[in-house]
Amino acid sequence: MPDSISSIDELPLTDLIKGFPPGHAPVRLGEVGRQGWNLLREDLPLPLAVLKSDVIDANSRWMAQFLKASGAIIAPHGKTTMSPQLFRRQLADGAWAITVATVGQLQVCRRYGLKRLLLANQLVGRRAIAHVVSELARDPDFEFYALADSVEGVAMLAAEAERQGLARPINLLLEGGIAGARTGCRDLASALGVARAIKAAAPHLALAGVEGFEGLIHGASDAESERQVGAFLDFLVEIAAACGHEKLFRHGPVILSAGGSTYYDLVAERFAAAGLGETMVVLRSGCYLTQDSTAYRKAFQRIRARSPRAAGLEGGLGNALEVWTYVQSRPEPGRLILTAGKRDLSYDLDLPVPLAWHRPGSAGAPQPIPAGHEVVALNDQHAHVRVPAASPLQVGDMVALGISHPCTTFDKWQVMFLVDGAYNVVGAIRTFF
Amino acid sequence: MPDSISSIDELPLTDLIKGFPPGHAPVRLGEVGRQGWNLLREDLPLPLAVLKSDVIDANSRWMAQFLKASGAIIAPHGKTTMSPQLFRRQLADGAWAITVATVGQLQVCRRYGLKRLLLANQLVGRRAIAHVVSELARDPDFEFYALADSVEGVAMLAAEAERQGLARPINLLLEGGIAGARTGCRDLASALGVARAIKAAAPHLALAGVEGFEGLIHGASDAESERQVGAFLDFLVEIAAACGHEKLFRHGPVILSAGGSTYYDLVAERFAAAGLGETMVVLRSGCYLTQDSTAYRKAFQRIRARSPRAAGLEGGLGNALEVWTYVQSRPEPGRLILTAGKRDLSYDLDLPVPLAWHRPGSAGAPQPIPAGHEVVALNDQHAHVRVPAASPLQVGDMVALGISHPCTTFDKWQVMFLVDGAYNVVGAIRTFF
Repeated sequence: MPDSISSIDELPLTDLIKGFPPGHAPVRLGEVGRQGWNLLREDLPLPLAVLKSDVIDANSRWMAQFLKASGAIIAPHGKTTMSPQLFRRQLADGAWAITVATVGQLQVCRRYGLKRLLLANQLVGRRAIAHVVSELARDPDFEFYALADSVEGVAMLAAEAERQGLARPINLLLEGGIAGARTGCRDLASALGVARAIKAAAPHLALAGVEGFEGLIHGASDAESERQVGAFLDFLVEIAAACGHEKLFRHGPVILSAGGSTYYDLVAERFAAAGLGETMVVLRSGCYLTQDSTAYRKAFQRIRARSPRAAGLEGGLGNALEVWTYVQSRPEPGRLILTAGKRDLSYDLDLPVPLAWHRPGSAGAPQPIPAGHEVVALNDQHAHVRVPAASPLQVGDMVALGISHPCTTFDKWQVMFLVDGAYNVVGAIRTFF
Repeated sequence: MPDSISSIDELPLTDLIKGFPPGHAPVRLGEVGRQGWNLLREDLPLPLAVLKSDVIDANSRWMAQFLKASGAIIAPHGKTTMSPQLFRRQLADGAWAITVATVGQLQVCRRYGLKRLLLANQLVGRRAIAHVVSELARDPDFEFYALADSVEGVAMLAAEAERQGLARPINLLLEGGIAGARTGCRDLASALGVARAIKAAAPHLALAGVEGFEGLIHGASDAESERQVGAFLDFLVEIAAACGHEKLFRHGPVILSAGGSTYYDLVAERFAAAGLGETMVVLRSGCYLTQDSTAYRKAFQRIRARSPRAAGLEGGLGNALEVWTYVQSRPEPGRLILTAGKRDLSYDLDLPVPLAWHRPGSAGAPQPIPAGHEVVALNDQHAHVRVPAASPLQVGDMVALGISHPCTTFDKWQVMFLVDGAYNVVGAIRTFF
């Protein structure tokens, strides 16, 4: 079994994995960048998801600047990419921890040697609870946090810690939520009830902070969304203040955590002004590293528009993720069919957008897609594109699609290739979904 | 590299794979059924996708009866499950071939020893075309069919066959299509143009039949959809008759192929009555083996309602696929949050439906879900369920979800467990997406 991030370079890739050249001998992950492959030369089969290495570098630099300026730290949500190699990159950039959504995701991180993990979810289920407790018992370097929003859930964790005789507490973040939305206590009274249950379950459990997720808030306008986010953050601060007042927290700084990829500027700002004494403000954006071409691109434009701090930084976040396809048919003058579909890219927030095209055999960089080319439907393995009758695209041409929502494209690829500005393959990442 | 379907049993499963118990030692795929695992006893982490073994058996038997009664043969679409073990089952049941959507999928089938494959797509791209031609040259037992709908695409295939000096033809099915829909020639004149180009590219190419996909037809009513399907099937027969008249087909029976999982009864009926001389009617349903709880369940009800032949057969197609989850939070009396989301189940046609629930530690079979429980939203890793205030469900309970559209649930699991009627794990299948 692997036990460190570096061992991932030894994993063999074979043509059982989508995107690997059919018939090619297996290549170790760490050797992919030395094969001399180039996307535009058709060295790889399409559809193919690629990550632009230089854009990822720039996005890393921008987020590091933002964190430094805001005083927050980050535990990037690993569920976005589920790539231990990208986690390694994020930790090297200074990330405090990696966030995960499930114990399966946690286990992938553990297998690749990660020490500090935040499960941004309630820990439930016999097998999952038992595993986390046994990992905490086995490895003194494993630092773990999970969410709690019910007395029933707290009791299940305490019971298993007691059953295994765990010698240190399970750290919990008390989750505040929003009426009609996802998990989290809806009011101060129920939150305090859960916090008191955690305190009462010492030494098996410890309350390490307060957490919420504001990313599902969608008001009637940007301003209304932001007002609701502000009110929710105030609620989380109110919970933390009340827990502090009752001395329900463990010893040490109180963790305040919120922040998906849409409102992290507001989170950093509000929590910095919480006035709760010694706190650690932990953001959890998962999408900043690659961004996208639609939803998170717009979210970042909005962050810059409202946050003077974000607007004042050098550079910015750009799209690093493209899915390349072929034109397989132009059955009508106004319609193209591409070789990529729901199996290959996101379709939960927006349809993909054509970005560029390339005719195999031609020299130079890909051409920007002409106006009027629009993806209008996806099937499992196809994209339907409406095009002007004068579109230059023909059967066999290559088309790059931009996506909306990185999480739901990453999970469709076990391997994604890293490319330089000329689409030379300089490496590859493995994902574990 | 694997080279036969039986070698798949040797693949090691580890806890890097979703659904495998965290911390458990690796288990070979063929040994999964001997671990003594039971879903209801919480031996496995959730979310977990399971296939009911006895329902798959019954579905197999039903389709075998239908094919015998209709005189059609089947090349089940492998893109649905991408599981060589299920392909083995389908071939053992008498399937003529396995259908694939991409050369990556074809390559998975080849690695596991499949001999006869139908690529229900245009074959495009340097790497993909070169690979298929070299496989045809290398292995005389490899029997391959692809679609063609343009003179340009035909020319690319002929050029590569010539370049490699391929000593036998690439078999093509001429694709007929529908205005405004996906691939395929829109009218008889363009279809004949493609067919003549194939004939002219002998000995590199050969026209083996005519193909279409009627599954995207959605009229204003069932009756209108069925009328449009009938008209489209007539168009395909018209193309085949014209090609036959011009003697554009290769020697031997003419293949007529259509049929997703919604209208295969109409396809079998219309093609059987084509009056074209010696033909092979090849259906391609991918979803019959597992069915689902919504879209394909309704499609099958409709098939039985309109087809006396289907209605007269013993048994029927039932749902074999469930995704089990935990209740992780009940933050309001009227709302539950489950530990499964877009990463775990289909959401492209309909939201999942709660089917049953089970309280860990309790005896007996799962309980049917009470009335009024409805999944109202999915996030990446969560399902939001509206419940009556009197719902018995609480944190830690297990809930089974039924899905709509098997293809987009299979692609979210690298391993799916096979269970018997008491949810004992009797085996597992590996998928390759």
